[in-house]
Amino acid sequence: MTEADSEISLTFARGLALLRAFDADGKGMTVADLARRLDYTRAATRRLVRTLEMAGYVTADGTRYMLTPLVLKLGLGFLQSRSIGRLVGPVLHGESLALGEPISLALLSGRELVYVVHAPTSAKIETAGYTIGSSLPLTATAMGQATLAFRHAPDLSVQDGPGTDQGLATIRARGFAHVPDTDGKGFCAIAVPAFGLDTDAAVGALGIVYPNGRYGTDHLLDVIVPNLQKCARYIAMAL
Amino acid sequence: MTEADSEISLTFARGLALLRAFDADGKGMTVADLARRLDYTRAATRRLVRTLEMAGYVTADGTRYMLTPLVLKLGLGFLQSRSIGRLVGPVLHGESLALGEPISLALLSGRELVYVVHAPTSAKIETAGYTIGSSLPLTATAMGQATLAFRHAPDLSVQDGPGTDQGLATIRARGFAHVPDTDGKGFCAIAVPAFGLDTDAAVGALGIVYPNGRYGTDHLLDVIVPNLQKCARYIAMAL
Repeated sequence: MTEADSEISLTFARGLALLRAFDADGKGMTVADLARRLDYTRAATRRLVRTLEMAGYVTADGTRYMLTPLVLKLGLGFLQSRSIGRLVGPVLHGESLALGEPISLALLSGRELVYVVHAPTSAKIETAGYTIGSSLPLTATAMGQATLAFRHAPDLSVQDGPGTDQGLATIRARGFAHVPDTDGKGFCAIAVPAFGLDTDAAVGALGIVYPNGRYGTDHLLDVIVPNLQKCARYIAMAL
Repeated sequence: MTEADSEISLTFARGLALLRAFDADGKGMTVADLARRLDYTRAATRRLVRTLEMAGYVTADGTRYMLTPLVLKLGLGFLQSRSIGRLVGPVLHGESLALGEPISLALLSGRELVYVVHAPTSAKIETAGYTIGSSLPLTATAMGQATLAFRHAPDLSVQDGPGTDQGLATIRARGFAHVPDTDGKGFCAIAVPAFGLDTDAAVGALGIVYPNGRYGTDHLLDVIVPNLQKCARYIAMAL
């Protein structure tokens, strides 16, 4: 298949992959680094990198290229279209104050759960270095489990995960997912599914991370879960 | 200039522009909408949109296309390379607790100041709907002014802004920028410049927004500004 006769643009697809191939260590990457990582030719790689540079998305330091803050604008249309700044952020913040714990939102995209609203006050999340755009493990996190449990069966393609089958039925019956302090780091997580207005399959989840022992079962069931669920209903129109 | 003989890829550049052309209202856009907005042919537009769809960055609802949460991953490399999750977020959060006000970070990219760390607890910011990736006005905001005042003269290309010349000299002399409650909405802003390790020109600014009347001049000068400056030094290695 050549680019000319295809329905998609290989150049654009390759450029998008290049944008995601930049290193996380902040030292920047050379054209050769990127070409090797992506298995592109150097000439094609240079052309894509120079295009990003001309548009302001990367900057050069000698032969090393680094992403600029402008790349954050590529996600802005999504955040604005979902009213993350105007509706979701304020609602989550208001409920966070009421609950005493910051609430996070992650949304399913394909088979990835993507962090959309970051809770900067969660020590556990900060230790892990999560930011907007980070992927959360589907089966190992409360937000992932709360999402999976409320997908329709054909969607539920992660049934080979650790103990998910039985676990998801329980989560569905209870209406929330809870992950205790299994790794001994002192934090637990609890999450409820989030639905859009026109779907009965979860599009993501709302959750909090809290220090082990802070809440008893009664407080979780009577206060935390109902408040998270109320919050999920409030933001449904944005999802 | 045809694409083949150019150093840059017009297809990739057009695709990036397309990604930023999606509407903020959440109703999605048709190929015709996008073609009109960008002045591309429908065939070229359809090909770029289909490429985004195949890669998971947009999803179709009938003939309307919407961005998916996956677009947030296009900014992830930047956030990770600048240690936003691991260093900047935790430092800003720690200092926010000490100050009693959430601290925001915005970085200069070309002539835009881009929001990098969002302060979800600022009522003023939430009212304006700012999120990560939002642009802040350079001359009208404390963070913009604090950045501009500490750029070198040739960079300082916004001297035609309202009263900037005299104002920037004052900001340089004082070391911070302050914007009082000029619009009568009840909030003031104060910001200090942020520098990278190897540059003496500001790369952005740290700032807080606070209710008018909450702090006297002494508290601003003796507590808020020195704490913001300390914070800026701590995160310099990430910028």
